[in-house]
Amino acid sequence: MSALNVTQKLIKDHLVEGELIPGKEIGIKIDQALLQDATGTLVQLELEAMGLDRAKTEVAVQYVDHNLLQTDFKNADDHLFLKSAAQRFGLWFSRPGNGVSHPVHMERFGKPGKTLVGSDSHSCAAGSLGMLAIGTGGLDVASAIAGQPYYVKMPKVMGVKLTGKLPDWVSAKDIILEMLRRHDVKGGVGKIIEYYGEGLQHLSAMDRHVIANMGAELGATTTVFPSDEETKRFLKSQTREDDWVELKADEGCEYDLHDEIILDELVPLIALPTSPGNVVPVSEVAGKKISQCVVGSSANPGLRDFWIVGEIVKGKSVNAEVSLDINPTSRQIIQNMIDIKTFGNLITAGARFHQSGCMGCIGMGQAPASGTISLRTMPRNFPDRSGTKDDQVHLCSPETAAASALTGKITDPRDLEKLYDMKYPEYVDPEIHIINTDMLVAPLEDNKSVELQKGPNIKSLPHIDKLKDSAEVPVLLKMGDNISTDEILKAGAEVLPFRSNLPEISKYAFTVIDETYYDRAMQTKDQFGGHIVVAADNYAQGSSREHAAIAPKYLGQIAVIAKSYARIAWQNLVNFGILPLEFENNDDYEKFEQGDTIKLKNLRDAVKNRETIQVEIVKENGDSVTIPTKHTLSDRQIRVLLKGGIINEFKEKLS
Amino acid sequence: MSALNVTQKLIKDHLVEGELIPGKEIGIKIDQALLQDATGTLVQLELEAMGLDRAKTEVAVQYVDHNLLQTDFKNADDHLFLKSAAQRFGLWFSRPGNGVSHPVHMERFGKPGKTLVGSDSHSCAAGSLGMLAIGTGGLDVASAIAGQPYYVKMPKVMGVKLTGKLPDWVSAKDIILEMLRRHDVKGGVGKIIEYYGEGLQHLSAMDRHVIANMGAELGATTTVFPSDEETKRFLKSQTREDDWVELKADEGCEYDLHDEIILDELVPLIALPTSPGNVVPVSEVAGKKISQCVVGSSANPGLRDFWIVGEIVKGKSVNAEVSLDINPTSRQIIQNMIDIKTFGNLITAGARFHQSGCMGCIGMGQAPASGTISLRTMPRNFPDRSGTKDDQVHLCSPETAAASALTGKITDPRDLEKLYDMKYPEYVDPEIHIINTDMLVAPLEDNKSVELQKGPNIKSLPHIDKLKDSAEVPVLLKMGDNISTDEILKAGAEVLPFRSNLPEISKYAFTVIDETYYDRAMQTKDQFGGHIVVAADNYAQGSSREHAAIAPKYLGQIAVIAKSYARIAWQNLVNFGILPLEFENNDDYEKFEQGDTIKLKNLRDAVKNRETIQVEIVKENGDSVTIPTKHTLSDRQIRVLLKGGIINEFKEKLS
Repeated sequence: MSALNVTQKLIKDHLVEGELIPGKEIGIKIDQALLQDATGTLVQLELEAMGLDRAKTEVAVQYVDHNLLQTDFKNADDHLFLKSAAQRFGLWFSRPGNGVSHPVHMERFGKPGKTLVGSDSHSCAAGSLGMLAIGTGGLDVASAIAGQPYYVKMPKVMGVKLTGKLPDWVSAKDIILEMLRRHDVKGGVGKIIEYYGEGLQHLSAMDRHVIANMGAELGATTTVFPSDEETKRFLKSQTREDDWVELKADEGCEYDLHDEIILDELVPLIALPTSPGNVVPVSEVAGKKISQCVVGSSANPGLRDFWIVGEIVKGKSVNAEVSLDINPTSRQIIQNMIDIKTFGNLITAGARFHQSGCMGCIGMGQAPASGTISLRTMPRNFPDRSGTKDDQVHLCSPETAAASALTGKITDPRDLEKLYDMKYPEYVDPEIHIINTDMLVAPLEDNKSVELQKGPNIKSLPHIDKLKDSAEVPVLLKMGDNISTDEILKAGAEVLPFRSNLPEISKYAFTVIDETYYDRAMQTKDQFGGHIVVAADNYAQGSSREHAAIAPKYLGQIAVIAKSYARIAWQNLVNFGILPLEFENNDDYEKFEQGDTIKLKNLRDAVKNRETIQVEIVKENGDSVTIPTKHTLSDRQIRVLLKGGIINEFKEKLS
Repeated sequence: MSALNVTQKLIKDHLVEGELIPGKEIGIKIDQALLQDATGTLVQLELEAMGLDRAKTEVAVQYVDHNLLQTDFKNADDHLFLKSAAQRFGLWFSRPGNGVSHPVHMERFGKPGKTLVGSDSHSCAAGSLGMLAIGTGGLDVASAIAGQPYYVKMPKVMGVKLTGKLPDWVSAKDIILEMLRRHDVKGGVGKIIEYYGEGLQHLSAMDRHVIANMGAELGATTTVFPSDEETKRFLKSQTREDDWVELKADEGCEYDLHDEIILDELVPLIALPTSPGNVVPVSEVAGKKISQCVVGSSANPGLRDFWIVGEIVKGKSVNAEVSLDINPTSRQIIQNMIDIKTFGNLITAGARFHQSGCMGCIGMGQAPASGTISLRTMPRNFPDRSGTKDDQVHLCSPETAAASALTGKITDPRDLEKLYDMKYPEYVDPEIHIINTDMLVAPLEDNKSVELQKGPNIKSLPHIDKLKDSAEVPVLLKMGDNISTDEILKAGAEVLPFRSNLPEISKYAFTVIDETYYDRAMQTKDQFGGHIVVAADNYAQGSSREHAAIAPKYLGQIAVIAKSYARIAWQNLVNFGILPLEFENNDDYEKFEQGDTIKLKNLRDAVKNRETIQVEIVKENGDSVTIPTKHTLSDRQIRVLLKGGIINEFKEKLS
């Protein structure tokens, strides 16, 4: 393997453990870390619990972009906490309203050749600059900030060759929609998507951001672009030309998987409700009445993306039946939009402007009317994500959104030529953008004396004990297949505000399955020192939320016994000191009943030496039976688990 | 009374019933009506129930400025409903994001010499143009739209003479804060405040808007300014010079009450938590740390108000501890802000921009952090109104807010001269403002075929029966003194979304007092045809919300028997067909117990002829006692009540 692709180069340069063999765990050094506010409060509490002195990464930035609506004290309190925590731990702080993490990070901090982890699934967007950027759970990011490697199974690399040039009225969004049309939302699982080919020369770094960002929707581990002349031009426009290095695949390099897109053949595409993978040509659904268009978000964040909308609606008026909502990505982009007249064009045509942030992309405002169609340049259209239960969110390019905002119905932007005698406007990016860094607060040199500023809803994490050696505890729940993290700890407006308040959010643990769990867990924690739960296949599938592990742990959960686990949740359990046991014989699942007591002995040695772990099940009538179980943890995971999780392990390293 | 003041002229020109004697009911013709969305949904449902064909006022406008955050389907559904209703009933429709009702109305529709009612307490702001503009309950506005007179007890007129000229760094907001310092929040009750004197020549129409708007905080019925050269200049700047007429007090006119403000003597003022009347000089509290400044809202809506903030922060950066939130009043003002560079100055300095609307003024976003100080140019700082329970909202001028945003603590703007070597910037209003009316949808010529667009949360009002002649119904509640409308039907995030869904919001009726009321009322409605409630003094004090009458009516409430009533609520009961009875002997209050049954006979004749109304109280054991009660309704109110309320009366007129 002498000729390397860009992905392999990035990983090789940062490899600290393992080999570049797909499926094998590798450990990589992390250069940069990105936090947003909705997940960041917990990460900062983890840093506090770890006793971190100062961030070890080259750059770590706490952004505030999700919770900006401030309908009560909690968001504003979080902002003050996050600022104090960023200062305490030596992070940059991007103030509320400064912008969405991904494009701001790209503009100000992204560097070709570097690695990044981020506590947001779209952190992969930084791949647009030739970075290896992975979205992951909060504790993984906290560990990276604390100087630990990031562990992941080496993915396969899919090379996607781009040839030719996009036609008029077709833009970068249509490329990633084409990828979703071909591979759907699971097509990227276990893979890194690497783009190459001569078609890249017509795609700006921000165009690549559009593609890399929505790589998350393919399920890909991340997306990687080379660092080339376009990358250089972008960094120069941000007055950061010195940060550029070239990063190209070697001649003759290989990819595990292959695909190719001939750009000239693409047409405007649109993802229908309720999956980003549900893609068809716009022309197939043209004519349907719409009530809303939202442009912006991290999936179409560039100045060009707003400019093209401004040019299309310039001198016209938004259709009377449509709300055109502008979701500006950053304060800096607003300044540039003012400068190139885009802002005025949009306001004059009737657009509604919002704060720079994630907004409706994560259901934080601008929910559409019941049952009506909303066109969005955002990355996701899962049911109810907009905040409206029967929403009809379609995902499309800025061109398609702008054309439709004028006509009041889904419109192929190519039709603008006939409808309004319009030529496709040709964008010329300003050589140097207006730069404004005033709302980015630099890390303090003397950070150790900073006190964390905690409002009444922000609680420090409790200490987690090391793994017990023996236990005699009840089985509080027996669950079936495919239990999701939404069932373990639901999201939504009622629960999310408690994300930085573990005692409070724990009250919602498993409520979807059994409303008595919390009370029973609190009682058995006092009485027996904890409990276990039993599940069947694919336990804890779904989102990566850590609360689905840390809340049960807080309530005394010692172990889960299941037939199988979802990948991220399995890792999260270990990270927070919960033992994920598997049946040696899946039929033994039937031997459990809720209310049984289980007995475990010599647990620590058995875990450490990968011995069969004997679980004695004692029925209420005193009958008992013993079944064999096992775990499939790596050496590193065993080490972490015995100590009670990653936070304890790090604390031990420190002392 | 040959020499008239402006108030008397306005009333005399529109008088259709009564005389200009303070305390006596007068009926006045209404020229214009203003609706906002939070109250407007109910008004539109009332117009539907009344069977209105088309608005009879010269101008009626439905604005959408309160509920813009759209965290679920309800707001967006309301917007579609309001648009369809505006079109159905021949109203203008100001689209969501077009701006706050009061300043937009002033710019586009306000006319000297005209009368206006609005379903928003700050509707009095239109007094800035020489209008008689009164904020009132929704059904009063619906009646006015239907061509009915507006009834109010003739207030006293307080003449306030303004002399001299404001010093540098002191602006219109400090004038109304001085009025609040002198008269507090009840000083204007039963009064119209009329400003006059040579000091007016230095106050623009928008400065007068600042003063008239917050006249609501004095408790005044309204505020009136003359229409003079400044009014003309304003209308010209809005390209509406033709709408100007002069309106001045006659030489030698008289006022019922007098006050005078020497403008040269004013200093920057600030209202401390938690009342707009809690006013002190800024210098007295200077130096206190702040976390937020919010500028804009209908209480400082003018281009100048944003411009001065932009000039003060220009080339500087908002203090790192402060969130500077800009609450732009309208899309048109944003366009003008861009034009005169104010928008860029603010964004560059680090301000967060929000949608044009009411925002944090009514707790719709940007709640401050717990226990921290927020400076706002808004009109109200009642506890928790911001959305944060222990909020510390201070009200001040744009100058004070801007100075404090720079320093991070409460700052007398006069100190900017020393701190930043700054001279007071001199504002020159553009001769002609940029005008944009695209988001104002004109009434349809053919309005009758428009269908109302109702989302799942919008329900038509039920029919209300005429007053029963006899009844044998239970006493469902016996309450004490000073029961507030908040106790009858609470506000807040849980309940407000049901404001256009009477069956649903009725479930919250009296829950603060007795959670079983709803179930018992529904049951007794079926079983006995209704119920009554008994209260002591000052029943239904507090806000003017109509739901505190219409929800109990929906649940079968026939009458209230109380020692006395709050004024607006008493009128609301009649408007919705509930008989407000009073004890002949207040001691009889003691004879009631919850659970008693009462018998009423020949009720209609007794009400009509102002006879004593005999109420037989039957105890559970069968004992009974009869007590005398009465009402104090006007002839007009008797007529309305017998028919089951204003909606029925209007329907009868139609047929």
